[in-house]
Amino acid sequence: MKFIHTADWHLGKLVHGVYMTESQREVLHQFVDIVAEEKPDAVIIAGDLYDRSVPPTDAVELLDEILFKINVELKTPVIAIAGNHDSAERLSFGSSWYKHSQFYLAGKLTNSFTPIQIQGINFYMVPYAEPGVVRQLLEDESIHSHQDAMKALIGKIEETLNPNEPNVFIGHAFVLGGKTSDSERVLSVGGSGCVGVELFEPFSYTALGHLHSPDAIHHSKVKYSGSLLKYSFSEAKQKKSISIIEMDEKGNFSHRYRSLNPTYDMREIEGYLEELLDPQFYEKERTHDYLKITLLDEGALIDPMNKLRQVYPNVLHLEKKIDLTDVRKKDSYQVIHSKKKSEIELFEQFYMEMTTAEFTLEKKEAMAEIIEKVLKGAEER
Amino acid sequence: MKFIHTADWHLGKLVHGVYMTESQREVLHQFVDIVAEEKPDAVIIAGDLYDRSVPPTDAVELLDEILFKINVELKTPVIAIAGNHDSAERLSFGSSWYKHSQFYLAGKLTNSFTPIQIQGINFYMVPYAEPGVVRQLLEDESIHSHQDAMKALIGKIEETLNPNEPNVFIGHAFVLGGKTSDSERVLSVGGSGCVGVELFEPFSYTALGHLHSPDAIHHSKVKYSGSLLKYSFSEAKQKKSISIIEMDEKGNFSHRYRSLNPTYDMREIEGYLEELLDPQFYEKERTHDYLKITLLDEGALIDPMNKLRQVYPNVLHLEKKIDLTDVRKKDSYQVIHSKKKSEIELFEQFYMEMTTAEFTLEKKEAMAEIIEKVLKGAEER
Repeated sequence: MKFIHTADWHLGKLVHGVYMTESQREVLHQFVDIVAEEKPDAVIIAGDLYDRSVPPTDAVELLDEILFKINVELKTPVIAIAGNHDSAERLSFGSSWYKHSQFYLAGKLTNSFTPIQIQGINFYMVPYAEPGVVRQLLEDESIHSHQDAMKALIGKIEETLNPNEPNVFIGHAFVLGGKTSDSERVLSVGGSGCVGVELFEPFSYTALGHLHSPDAIHHSKVKYSGSLLKYSFSEAKQKKSISIIEMDEKGNFSHRYRSLNPTYDMREIEGYLEELLDPQFYEKERTHDYLKITLLDEGALIDPMNKLRQVYPNVLHLEKKIDLTDVRKKDSYQVIHSKKKSEIELFEQFYMEMTTAEFTLEKKEAMAEIIEKVLKGAEER
Repeated sequence: MKFIHTADWHLGKLVHGVYMTESQREVLHQFVDIVAEEKPDAVIIAGDLYDRSVPPTDAVELLDEILFKINVELKTPVIAIAGNHDSAERLSFGSSWYKHSQFYLAGKLTNSFTPIQIQGINFYMVPYAEPGVVRQLLEDESIHSHQDAMKALIGKIEETLNPNEPNVFIGHAFVLGGKTSDSERVLSVGGSGCVGVELFEPFSYTALGHLHSPDAIHHSKVKYSGSLLKYSFSEAKQKKSISIIEMDEKGNFSHRYRSLNPTYDMREIEGYLEELLDPQFYEKERTHDYLKITLLDEGALIDPMNKLRQVYPNVLHLEKKIDLTDVRKKDSYQVIHSKKKSEIELFEQFYMEMTTAEFTLEKKEAMAEIIEKVLKGAEER
């Protein structure tokens, strides 16, 4: 039995203010071609189909188009779960109809732990859910962390799981020790959000979503497929792919990657402004890639972004390499106040990720006040 | 052949800041019971399934639940189109899967005018679309108004329509002369948005959505079903219902209503505060209805809303009956400046309807400035 494992499509994603939809469309068409060629018995999507609960309409249309091609035109069963970026309720709409054509979509976590059976393999779908939701669902007051929640859920599955059959777990979680990228949203503010890899021991294969690197963890049976595209510059050196698994009736499997290659790569370059604008240099470059450019120049430059965009239209981020001694000088205040600073910074990052709006000075001040109160309260307890 | 005609469910609707979801759920369960009892060959929903393009998640779950009961559990074909309140793209998601179980959902208007055939009747689905969208779709530069658009669309349908068969048109439009209510969103700012009833002549029956009264127009073959519930006090005296049509192979049909009865009605009452708060009065009243209360008292009253809500928990709107001579005095300024005043008022109404946010003084001033500029420009032309 052969299945494809993918995750973290993040349709509708904005990277530094630029919609990735066209690159997503391109790579998803490559994905459809791979499905047509590999003829798997199932395609698994382990969460974060969309980048947010209300994605832009062209992302909605793209997902509809791609899933229709795979499921209806290529007659391939699809098993998909919601991730932390998806709206469980919105994604669930219509799932009762889809299953008639073997498109199994789990948006909201339910109390039913019956697997989907395809060609002798049991697929357990566990969509992303907050620990509080799992606590309520399982009526288990002892559930507080993601670790507690996952342990309880797998405990439920184990009540009926037959260990002599091949069992595949499909989940969306941050497995302990996994390598993170800048484009994953933290699962827990204040807690680790992590779950231990040992929890997945009962399964022949665990198909995970959430971390964006295909080698976020190294484990023989628990794997991330990685995201569809690079969604942050911290992923610039990753190779994006999907995983192809062939499993026998005992749950033994082989695993290989097939890469996805968008026309425009996301990468970082470094140099002096003059050098980067020199045709001798850029003629050898893939100038339309999504770029983070680090300028080595010292002193002031006149409108460097505008000049660079004449040559590199998709510059997403520009920065100057700052002398380390400078940073130390500037940061002396920050270091002293590092505790307070880091909370507001964390929130700022979180806010911008959630809303893509600017975190203005007024907002910052209001939040700083709240954090101060909370910290004061914590000290007093 | 028997079919049910309904429209304007407006799931997720807020009336005076109160979600109607629970009343909608109640009435939709009555609707499901009627479907189970009548056993129609099809259920038609002529647009505005949701109240807005991104409805609240409980509205999404309610629609999913109800359509599943009707289409899958009761095995009744469903034909639904998007109205002006729906997001065509979001509503369309999954429609390719639904049609396998005879759930036909047209979100976006397409260039295909092939009818759905059920039991010898041809159902033509024409989801709501702006004239500009129709102009582009049909590549017909002469389309400017809703009348132009509808005429062109029906022209397209007529190219292949067989007048010897029973043909049903399903659309979402404002038919000329139709009686409006306060809860319908205007289709055209600046134009009438109307279409002539004569356009629908080629059809045996025209199942319309948009106007909320089941007798918005009186025509033997062109009909509104009316909305699911009363959504404004201007509808307080309407009787809400669904239409049951039985049609023969020649397109002749009988038409009858079945009423929908929510536990809490929406209605207006009038009286003196003291009288309304008197147990002798309110013990005979259905005090939990959604109410607009008009107070007859003169002079100041202390916190009347709060007092009234102790007895009538669902007061949605409170006003005082003002002496007509007072109004004339106050409005003398307005009458003189009636032209400018009415545009900003129209916009204010539109703004609050679209966003449910407050139209603050700053917003009003900014808009007044724009209107003034536009009017000045118009005078100069």
